Formats: sequence, C-alpha cells, structure tokens
Amino acid sequence: MCAKAVNARNSDDMDTREQLLKAAGDLMVERNSVNVSFSDIAQKSGVNAALIKYYFGNKSGMLLELVRKVVRTSVLQMDDLLKMQLPPEDKLRIHIHGIVNTYFRYPYINRLLHYILSLDEGDYGVIIADEVMKPLATAQRGILEEGVAAGIFRPVDPMLFYFHLIGACDHLFYARKALKFAFGVTEVTDDLKSRYAKHLHDLMINGLLTHGRSD
Amino acid sequence: MCAKAVNARNSDDMDTREQLLKAAGDLMVERNSVNVSFSDIAQKSGVNAALIKYYFGNKSGMLLELVRKVVRTSVLQMDDLLKMQLPPEDKLRIHIHGIVNTYFRYPYINRLLHYILSLDEGDYGVIIADEVMKPLATAQRGILEEGVAAGIFRPVDPMLFYFHLIGACDHLFYARKALKFAFGVTEVTDDLKSRYAKHLHDLMINGLLTHGRSD
Repeated sequence: MCAKAVNARNSDDMDTREQLLKAAGDLMVERNSVNVSFSDIAQKSGVNAALIKYYFGNKSGMLLELVRKVVRTSVLQMDDLLKMQLPPEDKLRIHIHGIVNTYFRYPYINRLLHYILSLDEGDYGVIIADEVMKPLATAQRGILEEGVAAGIFRPVDPMLFYFHLIGACDHLFYARKALKFAFGVTEVTDDLKSRYAKHLHDLMINGLLTHGRSD
Repeated sequence: MCAKAVNARNSDDMDTREQLLKAAGDLMVERNSVNVSFSDIAQKSGVNAALIKYYFGNKSGMLLELVRKVVRTSVLQMDDLLKMQLPPEDKLRIHIHGIVNTYFRYPYINRLLHYILSLDEGDYGVIIADEVMKPLATAQRGILEEGVAAGIFRPVDPMLFYFHLIGACDHLFYARKALKFAFGVTEVTDDLKSRYAKHLHDLMINGLLTHGRSD
C-alpha cells in the first residue's frame, strides 16, 4: 500500500470515529440521558454496529473517547489560563464561564463522567480522574492559592470548593426538568446560561474576597 | 369485621408499606442508583412483588411515596424556619445544613426526584414540583427577600440561587466516585458532611452580604 493510500485510510478512519462520537453525543442530548447502545449509535450514524466495536473495542472505550473529545480543549485552556498574568478573581471568573459553557454545549458530560466512574470497570475510574477531575481540581487550587498569597482571597478547602463549584455549574443543566416544572422555563437559552455563570462567579468570588466587593 | 381488627389491618398495611419503602431506599443507597425493580424490592423485603403492586399501583407511584416519606419532615421544618424570629443569614445557614443533612441521610433523593421528572408520566412532574421543588424555592426566596429588605443581603435572582444551592449541596453525594478517584476519599463521613455544609454557607452567605463578613 502506498503512503497516500495509508493516509487516506487513516483520514477515513478519523472521520468515521468522529462521526460515531458525534452521533453518541447527539443522542445523549436528545434523550437527556447517557444510556445509549451501540445499536442506537449505529442507527443514528448509519455505521454498522460491528464497526463501532472495531473502532472502540467496547462501549466503555467509546464513552471514554467521547469524554476526551469533549474535555480536551477545555483542559488545555485551563492550563493556559493558569499561566496568564491576570488577577486571581479574573482567572476564577473565566474558569467558571468556561465550565458553564462546556456544560451548556455538552449537557450530558457530567452524567457521562459519573456513569463511567460508576462502572468500576478496569482502569476507567483512574483514567477519568487523571485526565478530567484532577486537572480541574489542580487549576482551581492554583487560582485559590494565588488569591490567598495575594491577600485577596480567604483560605478555603480546595476539595470542598471543587464539589461546590462543579455541582453548582452543572445543576442548571442536570435539572432541566425541574426548571420546567418548578419555574416554567422550558429551555436553557444562551442568555440564561450567561446569567447563571455571572450569578455563580459573583456570589462565589464575593464569598472568597477578604475585603470589598467585585461589583 | 370489628373495629380492632380493622385497626390491626390498617396498622399492618402501614408497616408493610413502610417496610417496602425502606427496602427501596436501602437498595438505592447500596447500589448508588435509583434503578431498582419490584422484584429487587420483593427480594430485599421478603414481600411478594404482587403485593407491592397492590400497595403502590405501579413503580412510579411507589417512587413518589418514597420521595414523600423522605422530604415530608424537611418541608415542614422549612415552613417553621421561615416563621422564626431569626436574622436571615441564620435562617440560610440552618436551611443549607438541613438540605445537606437530608442528602447525607438519603444520598439518592435528588437522583430519584430527577428520575421521576424524566419519566414525563402522568402528573408526576407537577406533583414533584408542587410538593418538593416549589416549597424549597419559596423558602429560599423568602429568606433572600428578608435579607434584602433588612439591607443585609444584596439582591440575587432566586431561581439562579436555587440551582446554585441545590446543585452544590448535592454534588458531594452525587459525585462520591469522583471523591474516591480524584481525592482518595472513600467515604462521606459525618465530619466531612458537616465541613461541607459549613463551607457552603460560609461562602454563599459571605457572597450575599452587603457589608462585612459573617466570620
């Protein structure tokens, strides 16, 4: 096989993989559930279920690749954010907006992460923690420590802060049915998403500040 | 049938119902999942699956009764709290501790609520919203309004505050696997639960205060 043919094959493979992951994610959004099977994905994508197995090995392998596809850019952006010359409250504001935007675009991602963790299968828990949760927690700890060192933030437990922040950012998306039944709001619009992110960073940053207010 | 026999029968019925609801809740805690069937509950409780159907009609009916059993006391306590002669920040502190304590005792309750809402079956969504979410949101709005009227709290959107608070309170319990894999903490102890509640009310109340700090 000549080099060109190999490249073409790899490029086709990449397209099919992306197509399958996109179909899986789209199904999760439509159903508001991470419970999708290979045959659902086959039907949605038009790709044979046996080929899905060929590409990803098993369902957990495919779900892990979907997580990686969704969070890759966000994790890289978090690293860049930490290195920037910005006041810690600005970094935290950008960080919170980034998380809320990710959940807005991929409202299934937190359920998917916890579904994979709940499988207790192979090394998936360790991989998800190493590639997603630990980088998130490390970035937050870094921002909090910068703020404390500068005398701007009072010290808080970064682990408790992690669960506070992630749970809060996610709940508008997780609890969309509560939004509908308890508040009569049927859609998380771009405007509602932005107001939610602003509410969260205003309240949390003001809660951290040692003096004065940020607004 | 004499009155005594009727009372005995009612009392037995009540015991069996309570026993079934307890078995369902215990299974949800053991499995860290709300996915339990009538046959699981029959096996756990030693009560015939047909009898479970007799008592609750269908699975959704049983799940609704479990929700009612768990939240009944908390909803009554919230009403009492609102009427107390206490500063709004104390009310909010007690409210947050109450929610975290409920999630600590019944870590499945939020998943169960959203599972029932997601069924889109009959009037369950409206019932859950009326009996659980709206009273919670009303209590929070009341406390926030008292704080704003007293010049102690700055105004925030009570709906956004609801999703912030509920998501944050729940996440330590929902994300127990993340606690294990990302932080090496295998159990939510009573001490960790209390530290989490304190972290949440410190940060959120300080974020709301117009002047000074509560600690």
